[in-house]
Amino acid sequence: MALGCFYLSCLVLGSLGSMCILFTTYWMQYWRGGFAWDGSLHMFNWHPVLMVSGLVVLYGAASLVYRLPASWVGPKLPWKLLHAALHLMAFILTVVGLVAVFQFHSHSKIAHLYSLHSWLGLTTVVLFACQWFLGFAVFLLPWASLWLRSFLKPIHVFFGASILSLSIASVISGINEKLFFSLKNVTRPYSSLPSEAVFANTTGLLVVAFGLLVLYVLLASSWKRPEPGILTDRQVWLSVTHSSVGQARSRGRLPKKDLSLAKKTDHVV
Amino acid sequence: MALGCFYLSCLVLGSLGSMCILFTTYWMQYWRGGFAWDGSLHMFNWHPVLMVSGLVVLYGAASLVYRLPASWVGPKLPWKLLHAALHLMAFILTVVGLVAVFQFHSHSKIAHLYSLHSWLGLTTVVLFACQWFLGFAVFLLPWASLWLRSFLKPIHVFFGASILSLSIASVISGINEKLFFSLKNVTRPYSSLPSEAVFANTTGLLVVAFGLLVLYVLLASSWKRPEPGILTDRQVWLSVTHSSVGQARSRGRLPKKDLSLAKKTDHVV
Repeated sequence: MALGCFYLSCLVLGSLGSMCILFTTYWMQYWRGGFAWDGSLHMFNWHPVLMVSGLVVLYGAASLVYRLPASWVGPKLPWKLLHAALHLMAFILTVVGLVAVFQFHSHSKIAHLYSLHSWLGLTTVVLFACQWFLGFAVFLLPWASLWLRSFLKPIHVFFGASILSLSIASVISGINEKLFFSLKNVTRPYSSLPSEAVFANTTGLLVVAFGLLVLYVLLASSWKRPEPGILTDRQVWLSVTHSSVGQARSRGRLPKKDLSLAKKTDHVV
Repeated sequence: MALGCFYLSCLVLGSLGSMCILFTTYWMQYWRGGFAWDGSLHMFNWHPVLMVSGLVVLYGAASLVYRLPASWVGPKLPWKLLHAALHLMAFILTVVGLVAVFQFHSHSKIAHLYSLHSWLGLTTVVLFACQWFLGFAVFLLPWASLWLRSFLKPIHVFFGASILSLSIASVISGINEKLFFSLKNVTRPYSSLPSEAVFANTTGLLVVAFGLLVLYVLLASSWKRPEPGILTDRQVWLSVTHSSVGQARSRGRLPKKDLSLAKKTDHVV
């Protein structure tokens, strides 16, 4: 039952995330003329696709690495590397998405960074960069003290969730803005809800649903890597389906007196 | 020091919340012609003011009732009543804000509910209504079992935070949309960043800052009403500044065997 819930959550998250990317791509391809990398409006079309793919879907997936039962036992370092690498990929997609809109603006003599959407989006990306570098310096490099890691961990998790929330707000305002730009001076404007508007509005709500589900699994579910020595029965049962019983017992249930050693060698925090 | 941090948080939250309301009101009064209740564009001007006041600022304040140290000891029922009453006031302001925009649209023959801003905003208000009625039925009325309350409490907190996040996304897309409507076909359009645009964009970022600070205090700070019997030393020290030492000892630190009685009589969950 518990394992079933976990796989169901993965299935729903994977489906919603894929739909967000596919719907945004289809919107740009079918109604907005497809993609190019030449400074034209077709170059702009990469912007929504890359922001939704990088700053929402891949970012969301990267945030949930420690919610996988397989990550609950054994050394934490490989999972940290995966967490950092996925977030780096998300950041690269985000930066390419920004390049697409900046080059389109420059090519078409449109002012940069005037709308609230752009102010909030840039704030989100700057926070993302700070979060990644701080996370890398404190949690991945071996020099930070355990005290500093313990102190910063809840702040790191909170800002991770906040950046995703701001990404969603940026995407919603961006889709709204794009539809007002595209569906004016046409036979069927935005206010008459043509099929493009219904499709893009639905895409926005899918992004919201994906983001909320990620935040639920991240903040409110019981799918968390437990503190060493306090795996619940449910977590032991789940984790041994991804590892050996011996690993679960020897690494996840170390006696208290061995924890200090485990913390030093296994990057527990 | 700890009490100083608490009062500092209150001060920053109060200042940010007041600034959000004052900035939105000033924007509507100074640049958009002020307020009326006659179906005109001046009636629309109530919409942003009431949504920011109700769905963001008062909603945020109402969410934080249990973070006040004075609420950590003694019966929970008065605090529950305050929490529910403030949220009800927030909901009433929100509904009046919706009436303002619907009547303006009807009077001016503008289509209702076509933009993503309106779809997301309405979704947020419907979720808010469901959250309030479910919270009232489960946590305030005396009929729900303790098991049901314990099961629903983290979900209630999560959806409370989610609704605030969606409110912020709705406000951001709303401010963005309003500026595109108002600052077209004018000497200085939105893209030239006239003073109104800078002011309204700043208002949007203030709303984001207020929302994030509320979410931080709600989800990640240590300002939480503790489970009975496990007040930390810091919480005891803080709570006794708002109550008597006797209350803290007799109600907040009941021995384990008395908890079942306390739960039945004091609405602990």
